[in-house]
Amino acid sequence: MDNPTIAVDVMGGDNAPDSILDGVRLACEEYDVDLLLVGPEDLIRDFYDGDLPGGDRLRIRHASETIRMDENPLKAIRRKKDSSLNRAADAVKDGDAHALVSAGNTGAVHACTKIKWGVQERVDRPAIATLMPSRKGGYSVLIDVGANVDSDPHQLVQFGAMGSVYSELVLGVDDPTIGLLNLGIEEMKGNNLTKQAFSQFQNQPLNFYGNVEGRDIINGTTDVIVCDGFVGNIALKLSEGVAETIFDFIRDEIERSFRAKLGGMLLKPYFKNLKEMVDYSEYGGAPLLGLNGGCIISHGSSNPNAIKNAIRVARLSMSKECNRIIGERLQTLEFS
Amino acid sequence: MDNPTIAVDVMGGDNAPDSILDGVRLACEEYDVDLLLVGPEDLIRDFYDGDLPGGDRLRIRHASETIRMDENPLKAIRRKKDSSLNRAADAVKDGDAHALVSAGNTGAVHACTKIKWGVQERVDRPAIATLMPSRKGGYSVLIDVGANVDSDPHQLVQFGAMGSVYSELVLGVDDPTIGLLNLGIEEMKGNNLTKQAFSQFQNQPLNFYGNVEGRDIINGTTDVIVCDGFVGNIALKLSEGVAETIFDFIRDEIERSFRAKLGGMLLKPYFKNLKEMVDYSEYGGAPLLGLNGGCIISHGSSNPNAIKNAIRVARLSMSKECNRIIGERLQTLEFS
Repeated sequence: MDNPTIAVDVMGGDNAPDSILDGVRLACEEYDVDLLLVGPEDLIRDFYDGDLPGGDRLRIRHASETIRMDENPLKAIRRKKDSSLNRAADAVKDGDAHALVSAGNTGAVHACTKIKWGVQERVDRPAIATLMPSRKGGYSVLIDVGANVDSDPHQLVQFGAMGSVYSELVLGVDDPTIGLLNLGIEEMKGNNLTKQAFSQFQNQPLNFYGNVEGRDIINGTTDVIVCDGFVGNIALKLSEGVAETIFDFIRDEIERSFRAKLGGMLLKPYFKNLKEMVDYSEYGGAPLLGLNGGCIISHGSSNPNAIKNAIRVARLSMSKECNRIIGERLQTLEFS
Repeated sequence: MDNPTIAVDVMGGDNAPDSILDGVRLACEEYDVDLLLVGPEDLIRDFYDGDLPGGDRLRIRHASETIRMDENPLKAIRRKKDSSLNRAADAVKDGDAHALVSAGNTGAVHACTKIKWGVQERVDRPAIATLMPSRKGGYSVLIDVGANVDSDPHQLVQFGAMGSVYSELVLGVDDPTIGLLNLGIEEMKGNNLTKQAFSQFQNQPLNFYGNVEGRDIINGTTDVIVCDGFVGNIALKLSEGVAETIFDFIRDEIERSFRAKLGGMLLKPYFKNLKEMVDYSEYGGAPLLGLNGGCIISHGSSNPNAIKNAIRVARLSMSKECNRIIGERLQTLEFS
């Protein structure tokens, strides 16, 4: 698809609308991209002081309401028809845009896009993929990280297929390997779900590596790691928590003496590399895969850089026709 | 229980027997403890060059065979009757020792102790608890980390009860709080298992905090975190992997220039504090709870310090009558 239009949910996220609109400005400066900003028109025009970035490649669709981060997803999307999220999803449904970027309430984004756009043919359940920084450099795709709570073996195989398409098209990985997250690498290991998923994976035209363990999520053992959304959500939040705890600890230690402060000062540029490696804002957000439309869910506390990168990734996945290729890949799967 | 005897599996672990026997020597020097070393008698006597540590408080029970780390657990314990693990478990069953410390094949330790000792009254399934360093200082108890792969809601409640007894007696926490690991903190969140477990937890005479998320494992939000063994195993290995990756990254960065090396040198003592915080060898090992006997499973790559601490913890949990109190606590649970 040439020149896909990206709809941006201006009111979604902890730092909305400022971070979102600043991110939009960065995207207009750096990328060749068509944007549809969805939110209160006056607010958007005021923010840019009448001087919209992107020239005629940026349009506005007015929406008066905002869905808060802590609202019940289903109730919120039903009651707030004129919310920025609902209107942005409408725009994709109408064909006025091709993908949606939102840093808003994840449950609401998931429910809203699923209801309005529908699920792709042959997809049982959409899934959220996230990029995990890998010890080897680059990123692995962890899928699902919370779109679903209880999954069946066929769904896990579909997650693997969708994740591998994303890895290939958006991360540029050649024939990505798929690992099944498990408590041991041996074939017979696992709970009821993963044992069945293992045997289903073996019969597919996918580059299935086999079982992987918790540490492999970060080791880069495979390009894609498949798990149910319950496990993936815990893994994602835990790895963020461990990294933050270690950074906080280092920061506290550095404050403890002159010697430590001096050491910290000397190492500062190197810590910066580390922070960048684990910085979610660099890779933009988590794609919600398997829907009739592109969707990137950005971190709730996204800064402008994260929004800019989410727009980049949304545009890239649409240009590469991620959805069409996912549809084709899923057609090749055969379940016993 | 006064002066419990701790049986040590001399041949279990990647660094056995040397690390085990060095750890035993450290324990004899530091603690007031009765030990029964189980393994090849000649090898043990040769190692200490005839000068056994601990004087008459250290005895040896001969065992000629070794179960390897990669052996099939059930086959190994059936075939190698005279293995150090089997003989050490026999010693506890006979009453010749009260608890077992092993850094060997976790599956084999679990199967062997369960078969030989049996499960405590009112316990459906034994569970492995592990101590997670907490952002607040101290440790939280994460239970189960892999003794079981598929669990039911009643079992999760029992894990919570057993974990809270351990936290109270061994870590000295007053009325420990119990969190249920979930993908959101709201009551209605979760998969089938955790939703049911939540409602079962609410009716118990336990200090149930409610749901906790992945990051709470490390944040110290609750003293005990309950999950099924599949999730716990992945969480444990993932958090080890994330921490190792960050340390490796820092080490590599420090090698990159003179400036970085100097900074690293100045910060070295502070990094040491951090390493100690996440160093499993300081807390000795993971208790296998719910059996008719005490069992501490040490990390496969345990160094002498880890073995020393495992002996300390095994002794402490026996002195505090952890098993009897677990039995009493489980009697108070009522399931609908």
